[in-house]
Amino acid sequence: MAMVCLSDFEDYAKKYLPKIAWDYFAAGADDCTTRDENILAFKRIRFRPRMLRDVSVMDIRTKILGSEISFPVGIAPTGFHQLAWPDGEKSTARAARAMNTCYIASTYSTCTLEEISAAAPGGLRWFQLYIHRNRAASQQLVRRAEALGFRGLVLTADLPYTGKRRDDVRNGFRLPPHMKVKNLEQAFEYGLPPNSLDPSVTWNDIYWLRSLTRLPIIIKGILTREDAELAVRHGVQGIIVSNHGGRQLDEGPATIDALVEVVEAVRGRVEVYVDGGIRKGSDVLKALALGAKCVFIGRPALWGLAYKGEEGLQDVLRILQDEFRLSMALAG
Amino acid sequence: MAMVCLSDFEDYAKKYLPKIAWDYFAAGADDCTTRDENILAFKRIRFRPRMLRDVSVMDIRTKILGSEISFPVGIAPTGFHQLAWPDGEKSTARAARAMNTCYIASTYSTCTLEEISAAAPGGLRWFQLYIHRNRAASQQLVRRAEALGFRGLVLTADLPYTGKRRDDVRNGFRLPPHMKVKNLEQAFEYGLPPNSLDPSVTWNDIYWLRSLTRLPIIIKGILTREDAELAVRHGVQGIIVSNHGGRQLDEGPATIDALVEVVEAVRGRVEVYVDGGIRKGSDVLKALALGAKCVFIGRPALWGLAYKGEEGLQDVLRILQDEFRLSMALAG
Amino acid sequence: MAMVCLSDFEDYAKKYLPKIAWDYFAAGADDCTTRDENILAFKRIRFRPRMLRDVSVMDIRTKILGSEISFPVGIAPTGFHQLAWPDGEKSTARAARAMNTCYIASTYSTCTLEEISAAAPGGLRWFQLYIHRNRAASQQLVRRAEALGFRGLVLTADLPYTGKRRDDVRNGFRLPPHMKVKNLEQAFEYGLPPNSLDPSVTWNDIYWLRSLTRLPIIIKGILTREDAELAVRHGVQGIIVSNHGGRQLDEGPATIDALVEVVEAVRGRVEVYVDGGIRKGSDVLKALALGAKCVFIGRPALWGLAYKGEEGLQDVLRILQDEFRLSMALAG
Amino acid sequence: MAMVCLSDFEDYAKKYLPKIAWDYFAAGADDCTTRDENILAFKRIRFRPRMLRDVSVMDIRTKILGSEISFPVGIAPTGFHQLAWPDGEKSTARAARAMNTCYIASTYSTCTLEEISAAAPGGLRWFQLYIHRNRAASQQLVRRAEALGFRGLVLTADLPYTGKRRDDVRNGFRLPPHMKVKNLEQAFEYGLPPNSLDPSVTWNDIYWLRSLTRLPIIIKGILTREDAELAVRHGVQGIIVSNHGGRQLDEGPATIDALVEVVEAVRGRVEVYVDGGIRKGSDVLKALALGAKCVFIGRPALWGLAYKGEEGLQDVLRILQDEFRLSMALAG
Repeated sequence: MAMVCLSDFEDYAKKYLPKIAWDYFAAGADDCTTRDENILAFKRIRFRPRMLRDVSVMDIRTKILGSEISFPVGIAPTGFHQLAWPDGEKSTARAARAMNTCYIASTYSTCTLEEISAAAPGGLRWFQLYIHRNRAASQQLVRRAEALGFRGLVLTADLPYTGKRRDDVRNGFRLPPHMKVKNLEQAFEYGLPPNSLDPSVTWNDIYWLRSLTRLPIIIKGILTREDAELAVRHGVQGIIVSNHGGRQLDEGPATIDALVEVVEAVRGRVEVYVDGGIRKGSDVLKALALGAKCVFIGRPALWGLAYKGEEGLQDVLRILQDEFRLSMALAG
Repeated sequence: MAMVCLSDFEDYAKKYLPKIAWDYFAAGADDCTTRDENILAFKRIRFRPRMLRDVSVMDIRTKILGSEISFPVGIAPTGFHQLAWPDGEKSTARAARAMNTCYIASTYSTCTLEEISAAAPGGLRWFQLYIHRNRAASQQLVRRAEALGFRGLVLTADLPYTGKRRDDVRNGFRLPPHMKVKNLEQAFEYGLPPNSLDPSVTWNDIYWLRSLTRLPIIIKGILTREDAELAVRHGVQGIIVSNHGGRQLDEGPATIDALVEVVEAVRGRVEVYVDGGIRKGSDVLKALALGAKCVFIGRPALWGLAYKGEEGLQDVLRILQDEFRLSMALAG
Repeated sequence: MAMVCLSDFEDYAKKYLPKIAWDYFAAGADDCTTRDENILAFKRIRFRPRMLRDVSVMDIRTKILGSEISFPVGIAPTGFHQLAWPDGEKSTARAARAMNTCYIASTYSTCTLEEISAAAPGGLRWFQLYIHRNRAASQQLVRRAEALGFRGLVLTADLPYTGKRRDDVRNGFRLPPHMKVKNLEQAFEYGLPPNSLDPSVTWNDIYWLRSLTRLPIIIKGILTREDAELAVRHGVQGIIVSNHGGRQLDEGPATIDALVEVVEAVRGRVEVYVDGGIRKGSDVLKALALGAKCVFIGRPALWGLAYKGEEGLQDVLRILQDEFRLSMALAG
Repeated sequence: MAMVCLSDFEDYAKKYLPKIAWDYFAAGADDCTTRDENILAFKRIRFRPRMLRDVSVMDIRTKILGSEISFPVGIAPTGFHQLAWPDGEKSTARAARAMNTCYIASTYSTCTLEEISAAAPGGLRWFQLYIHRNRAASQQLVRRAEALGFRGLVLTADLPYTGKRRDDVRNGFRLPPHMKVKNLEQAFEYGLPPNSLDPSVTWNDIYWLRSLTRLPIIIKGILTREDAELAVRHGVQGIIVSNHGGRQLDEGPATIDALVEVVEAVRGRVEVYVDGGIRKGSDVLKALALGAKCVFIGRPALWGLAYKGEEGLQDVLRILQDEFRLSMALAG
């Protein structure tokens, strides 16, 4: 079977992953409307292709918060990579470094930050965190990430509670016994402790986070101009427009639609990124044309891992890169 | 089988109810366009979720006409609960009381008002009535309801004649011999007598109803700003925006769409509620955001009854409550 | 099998008619887009139902060109009724008279005008005609119709050539040997002679037609305000908004959409009717609410004939009548 | 099987062509959205049919760049006709001449220009070219075409690189060994050499092309008003609005939609044509009504070839001609 486009990897993963793992990765909240809208909204956007421009040489490199990446596609934070591939996040880190792009490691990794760092020294990585009820746990994670050379902190803002993903409830989803959420001080056994995150977090906690670290803070989960304005005022360095892959509140906006109003509100004061629904190189081009500095892929990265570990993830990134370059050329 | 969301109860009911009962509950008028539109219209409404608000404590209680309920979801009046569960409306009354919410008992109950009251003393209940050609029958019902402690009278305005529900015609729907519409003086055997309701009822009959009782009058079936204005002027205390679950005139508006214009016309002078198409907690949130004080569920309550009687109905209500609270948190 | 709504008759006809006859009646031009749009356009129109009006007595009679009919639904001109039922147009005439409504007999009837008249003396009938290359043939038909007591002449304007109905071409459609287009002087054997109609007909030919008869002239096939204005100026007494059931030019407007602009252009100067896509009593109500004086049904009448001849057609009309009355009541 | 409309030929070709050839002809870029949009966009355009006009005589001839054709449908440039029929482009040339219309021969023909010319002397033909990295190759082609009596040069502007057609990648598409791209000096074996075309071509290269030939230059692949203006300013004689059958950049505009803005920008200064999505005679009428001077068909011509070579292609053209004439008559 030739792996020609990202949906080939999706088909593979659906076929070969254990059902409980596939369901977990695929899950959207409630009716999965927003998960699917992320993709449909991209399709509604149409190019106006221009002809006879010299497209013999194209530079697709970009910089995010000052670090150069080979093309504007990074790896979004997703949990539990060992569900997709035995080496888990270590493979992800290696693939991202090999392709010279940015990998946002999740708090809910099945490898420690130290293992991730050791697997791919020198790679560009950001660390994604939640604010826990136990603030010391969060603080300790920030310090570790900074010490290990992570170059950005991504605060996820859209998960005061976990969204209702019906299949996970039906499956009674939990991690298999041999996997752990290793990054937290006392490694949780069997998946997410239900009440570890702090639902009382507010914008003021950005200041608290700021006080812990010199790393740039990127806020993830912004979907409205009002929150974009608040994010800028509270001093973040970047915004990831995201709806958590449609896994939190169902029937909110598609991210590519929300991107437009966020970019407009931000007026260039901080960098804006987007995740959700990227399935083709032309989606990347659309996001950039609408003001994103870079996009991040979630599920497609997991499909790549499921296919062949770091090699499979590189395949996914390479396909996106080729498609992105081709669509730039064809759009003029 | 895990009961995770309301459509699980729907699937169960479809599978285990006698076809004639399922068809009766599921029926919409003509092509069932409006029945289905009630649901589709909810899906077209999108949230603008806000982040980083303190959602650690949320109060979801509300008051309808002065009575507190634990969350803004009541039980809409539907007929013939014994078709769904042997104890019929007695189970409904118990479940509503257990969940501390309001139950609107239908004229076409298969238990008497007295049985319903005795089943769950102290529960918050309203009584739904039609105006019969035999006014004495209606008057007697109002008096009984008032005496039994019902705290509101819901006048259904959209059924001068019964809508054309094709499956009921095909099935020759009638109640099984052992069930009766017990509330009327001379209990009808076998379902609805075709010409018992008075199609000449007009707005002036609100005054007549007013003269019979000190209970608040809620009018059910309003879909336009014009009728909302008339309802207010005729002195009702509440309006239920409803299209009878799409069982009366097909191809009218979805209730959530009609709610917007009714709320605008009413300008806060009376309370406005809505029924039709509520299938998730986020639907409740949408209705409240658009101005409803509370919503009522019809078919989902019947599915709950069909599943496990009062326990099943409590499950349905509890799921809606949890989903409602979660969607409030996630929407900020 | 209970015949509850018009689509039950459609199902029956599809099942029991010879395929070649079913295909002929069902055919639309090209991709059948307009044929289907006629129905879809009705569904897009929504009611604003009003409540608490006295609907105990409703008068659904109306007058068209001065003749009273029992409700505003007549029989549109369609050809070859013997394909649906042995007695053909004689049955149609009897059913229309029994239901006290208007039947527009087609030039392409399989019974003569004389047979039709004799079958149901005293029934309200109009005669539909084309203008033939052989004007004497048209003139002779007009005279016969007038002499037989037909009370209107319906000139079909949308068939200078026959539309391309793919299934008819595939089937090599022609009438069976024992049926004939009996109304023309020399009865054609086997269906339509390809070049009998005159494609050079223009508005001025209305004057020619006017000179032949004192009957009111109704023009059928108008879809634009421009042509509606021309029709009025050329002195017709009525306009049937029609696209020939979607059998002529595909991808023109649905008739109910075209009705709106025609009614606006006509400003009450002549009566306006509509055919195409009427499947429920509520469609009739919509057409009347948008300005039609009466509607005509084409295929549903044929389904009724196919079911049980005149009795089946009466069933169809009676269902439409009941549904129309009910939807009037429910819409207030 | 009767061949009644173009989709009959499509069905035939899908059934009888080798899968690799069918896939190649059918392929669209990426998700095939634009390929399918070309057709859907035609369907969204509605006629406003006018009645009672004299349509007994209709002249459907037209002139393109001064040459008369029998009706406004030509053959768009498509490659590899031997994949559809053994005689390849020779059959195409014969059919076009027999129907007295224009055939645009592709650079990627499997017959030489000389063979094509010899097959149908005197036929109206244009030659389609790309600009190769090896400019001498392009120049030599232009000279040959001019010498052979081709009457126009069609420069394809939308293929700096080949679009991503997933099925071709999966199939490892290449020409069978016995076919060659014969027109290029050193005939390529096995399909397209990946880097033969020059992606650095810009508008100034029109001047270079102008310097090589006195033939009119038609630019193919324009989709925006901006590029239309540039094309006119750079002195082309004609514009073909085209998205390469949806085979290049996916999710750009449908050609019939783009036609509107191109025609508006051009303001009659040069002739405008369109290809993509023509499947019925009424599509031709729509394109002309929106300002095209003529349309070109791509895939339908290949289906005709696949059916019966030049005879099959004539069938396709004849059907389009008949449908076009009929739709003109019915639209008034």
